[in-house]
Amino acid sequence: MTQSAPVSPSETTKTNREQVFIFDTTLRDGEQSPGASMTFEEKIAVADLLDAMGVDIIEAGFPIASEGDFEAVSAIAERAKNAVIAGLARAIEGDIARCGEAVRKARRPRIHTFVSTSPIHLRHQMNKSEEQVLEIISRTVAQARNLVDNVEWSAMDATRTPIDYLCRCVEAAIKAGATTINLPDTVGYAMPEEYETLFRAVRERVPNSDKAIFSVHCHDDLGLAVANTLAGVKGGARQIECTINGLGERAGNAALEEVVMGLRVRGDSLPYYSNVDASMLTRASKLVSAVSSFPVQFNKAVVGRNAFAHESGIHQDGMLKNAQTYEIMTPESVGVSKTSLVMGKHSGRHAFKEKLKELGYELGDNALEDAFIRFKDLADRKKIVYDEDLMALVDDEILNAHDRIKVVALTVIAGTKGPQSAALTLEIDGEQVTHQATGNGPVDAIFNAILALVPHHATLELYQVHAVTKGTDAQAEVSVRLAEDGKSVTAKGADPDTLVASARAYVASLNKLMLKRGKSRPDVLTG
Amino acid sequence: MTQSAPVSPSETTKTNREQVFIFDTTLRDGEQSPGASMTFEEKIAVADLLDAMGVDIIEAGFPIASEGDFEAVSAIAERAKNAVIAGLARAIEGDIARCGEAVRKARRPRIHTFVSTSPIHLRHQMNKSEEQVLEIISRTVAQARNLVDNVEWSAMDATRTPIDYLCRCVEAAIKAGATTINLPDTVGYAMPEEYETLFRAVRERVPNSDKAIFSVHCHDDLGLAVANTLAGVKGGARQIECTINGLGERAGNAALEEVVMGLRVRGDSLPYYSNVDASMLTRASKLVSAVSSFPVQFNKAVVGRNAFAHESGIHQDGMLKNAQTYEIMTPESVGVSKTSLVMGKHSGRHAFKEKLKELGYELGDNALEDAFIRFKDLADRKKIVYDEDLMALVDDEILNAHDRIKVVALTVIAGTKGPQSAALTLEIDGEQVTHQATGNGPVDAIFNAILALVPHHATLELYQVHAVTKGTDAQAEVSVRLAEDGKSVTAKGADPDTLVASARAYVASLNKLMLKRGKSRPDVLTG
Repeated sequence: MTQSAPVSPSETTKTNREQVFIFDTTLRDGEQSPGASMTFEEKIAVADLLDAMGVDIIEAGFPIASEGDFEAVSAIAERAKNAVIAGLARAIEGDIARCGEAVRKARRPRIHTFVSTSPIHLRHQMNKSEEQVLEIISRTVAQARNLVDNVEWSAMDATRTPIDYLCRCVEAAIKAGATTINLPDTVGYAMPEEYETLFRAVRERVPNSDKAIFSVHCHDDLGLAVANTLAGVKGGARQIECTINGLGERAGNAALEEVVMGLRVRGDSLPYYSNVDASMLTRASKLVSAVSSFPVQFNKAVVGRNAFAHESGIHQDGMLKNAQTYEIMTPESVGVSKTSLVMGKHSGRHAFKEKLKELGYELGDNALEDAFIRFKDLADRKKIVYDEDLMALVDDEILNAHDRIKVVALTVIAGTKGPQSAALTLEIDGEQVTHQATGNGPVDAIFNAILALVPHHATLELYQVHAVTKGTDAQAEVSVRLAEDGKSVTAKGADPDTLVASARAYVASLNKLMLKRGKSRPDVLTG
Repeated sequence: MTQSAPVSPSETTKTNREQVFIFDTTLRDGEQSPGASMTFEEKIAVADLLDAMGVDIIEAGFPIASEGDFEAVSAIAERAKNAVIAGLARAIEGDIARCGEAVRKARRPRIHTFVSTSPIHLRHQMNKSEEQVLEIISRTVAQARNLVDNVEWSAMDATRTPIDYLCRCVEAAIKAGATTINLPDTVGYAMPEEYETLFRAVRERVPNSDKAIFSVHCHDDLGLAVANTLAGVKGGARQIECTINGLGERAGNAALEEVVMGLRVRGDSLPYYSNVDASMLTRASKLVSAVSSFPVQFNKAVVGRNAFAHESGIHQDGMLKNAQTYEIMTPESVGVSKTSLVMGKHSGRHAFKEKLKELGYELGDNALEDAFIRFKDLADRKKIVYDEDLMALVDDEILNAHDRIKVVALTVIAGTKGPQSAALTLEIDGEQVTHQATGNGPVDAIFNAILALVPHHATLELYQVHAVTKGTDAQAEVSVRLAEDGKSVTAKGADPDTLVASARAYVASLNKLMLKRGKSRPDVLTG
């Protein structure tokens, strides 16, 4: 690289590059992050987008974990147009059977089953011998393979498993019918060279290794997830497990958008390509940030709002002078568009529907009518209605469509002279109720009014507000996370009035919590 | 690594590891991020903390860029107790002289000068020949070395410079007196192996390379900054340029906290150590996030709020069973403490002062008294006052101490039936003025009232609210970014009432903007 100018992707065509399959686990490892749990509708929205953008395999959930997970995996399996739909299953007969049932209706179903292979887990966690685990692998992979043709097996804690034993496990899994072998860095501990060496060694030493595709799965605890991912590919892996925005347990997984752009931008050094349409990365990032309510930091690579903010004259100049080299990393290449004026208060139903289509939304008649009424209301109150405003409004409408509790009216008096007070009217299962409450600040007063109208014992874990667009009359988008009995849910609300948005977000969280009550997941999760 | 358990740092003592110097550029490359500019007081607060936590070199600013930058570098130079204080200078006589003046009073001053070495920059940007640039390097480094003993020279765009010419430049810089040689990956384009190879090659080929310390400086455009940094160290670099939270232009620099923890956790693979006290990483992250108003994403490695959220039973169990391996990555090792009940409304001045000391704050008498009054007011309104509440309050107090405009009183009426209205009283240069305004939502009404009282043409670029602690009566911390004539500033305000906090934050931004008017920086920045 220091010797010559990098090759632009127009020169490195796909014909002399090898495909790497992108396996997105935003809906499984990502959704597993404390506070990031999603509703059925949110999961469907994310899966539809992943499918449309060319993700090869979507891990849609962990079917045995809860009724909700099972339903989401089943629904996604049924509607996916292109992607392989995978469900996760422990090395347990019931798990695998349930997973097989969930993915059954997919055009291309996959069962992803895993078991720990590291001495620490065998000894302390599972209390099994190496031979016993080998037998479990053979038996469970064969069971899965009897249900579907496409079976992935993961060696949990692979990076801390002695290489000899790991090779025996991989050989057994392939022999039993596994078509993909995943060697995850479960604890986020590997260094790139080590991870590359691991793949090279296993692929060389396992006699039947050519019968399976190898897969990387990295965690970012030391900030090395993307580097480890690319190192694994250099070592021979051809499937990358990753998530939008790097969502995932602890410091998260490798970020899909960084991996995809790394492969594109450095095609000279990494002669591989993925099928993902990079121009949809920004939209995917925004959707996942919205449904998880995990903000994306400004300086996040590829999708952060500063990612393309070239302050220095030299940089801008350099890009102009040598556009070929950098064109692939222009904002446009990852789908960033300039905020644009879209519609005013005189825009009609037809124009509104066309605009939504252009933004990627296809609503049913009722949802469209509700969204249109809110749009007219917004256009009355806000000077300029941007694409982002419409997206916030429609997301709010779609995601909170089936709510039992709705915000009807709110009046707040607040300021430096307390106590602040809120008069709130809610519709609960069709019936309107009103309450006036005071509090320590207007938000506290509103939440106290909600508590009086809908008694509950959930605690508020997160409260965040951000403006949808620039300007003092921007819509506010509020995120609220509530926790109850160890379960937490996050929801959001949008309105030009921060306080109305706050009431909507809190009520949306309560609606989610009601859906979630009584559902649970097993206490064992993979890495 | 796959063959044996990793070595814990208690086994790998410092005696058999080599020191890597940590060069923090949060105040230069970080502060250069659009929207992250800091006031004098904020820079001092960050520098004091970096100095206290064992950072070896603090790059305090770019003295020629503005009067404000010069003053901040001078003040930090004068007060730093241990760290080397560096200022940045282009390869221009005036820049270097001004930089020398700014760092003069430091116990250990450094001038950091740079020039581009890549063909693209030489040809299109500088219109100079290779020989001319070599002459510039010799002349400017010698000039710097006549002013201070400690001179760093950077080859801007080093990773895209042909190796032969890069070696000649490095040799010339060392011959002219450079004691540190930095080879930055200015455009965030390198892959780890390439970057390692670059350092190995330059150090082998340059005859006098043993007379300088080599330095890495990486950008995260492809998510590889930390991996590239560690690769450079493996290639022989012994100085790491990085920033708290990975702040910096575009996708930012390598994150100091990730680099420091990588060296600690993987001492088996990387036999190096740094002098940074890891237990102060969380506090540094919070301070820099507060003064820049750049949020840290939940799944950010090391300092994200989910970084240590082990949801899975297996992971927790593994940590207990094999504590030695993981102890270094407990939350405590990076300074995360459980939120703790601290003080109530009956706590006195002495207890308050002691508590602040424990949290790392030493206030002057006036600031302490002001903070104490606000604490009593808060304790009257909020059931439980946490450490975080006190920190938000004191940060607000310190950072906004010298403001010309202050919020005196606010009353707001808002809700679903608009228009919302705000009656606001400000104190401007000691005089109280009041105005009532309406708006599209309560925040718009407040901002309209401020606009009427303090006419200005700045635009609102960012509005964000987050709760300081959990619970519906948590204090709100609001960030506001204003832009005027291409300059942007961010400021925050804290109060239990979101709307009061919003007014404070907007006013704080206006105060910052007034300080900034008339100051400018050159249009050439390094990478």
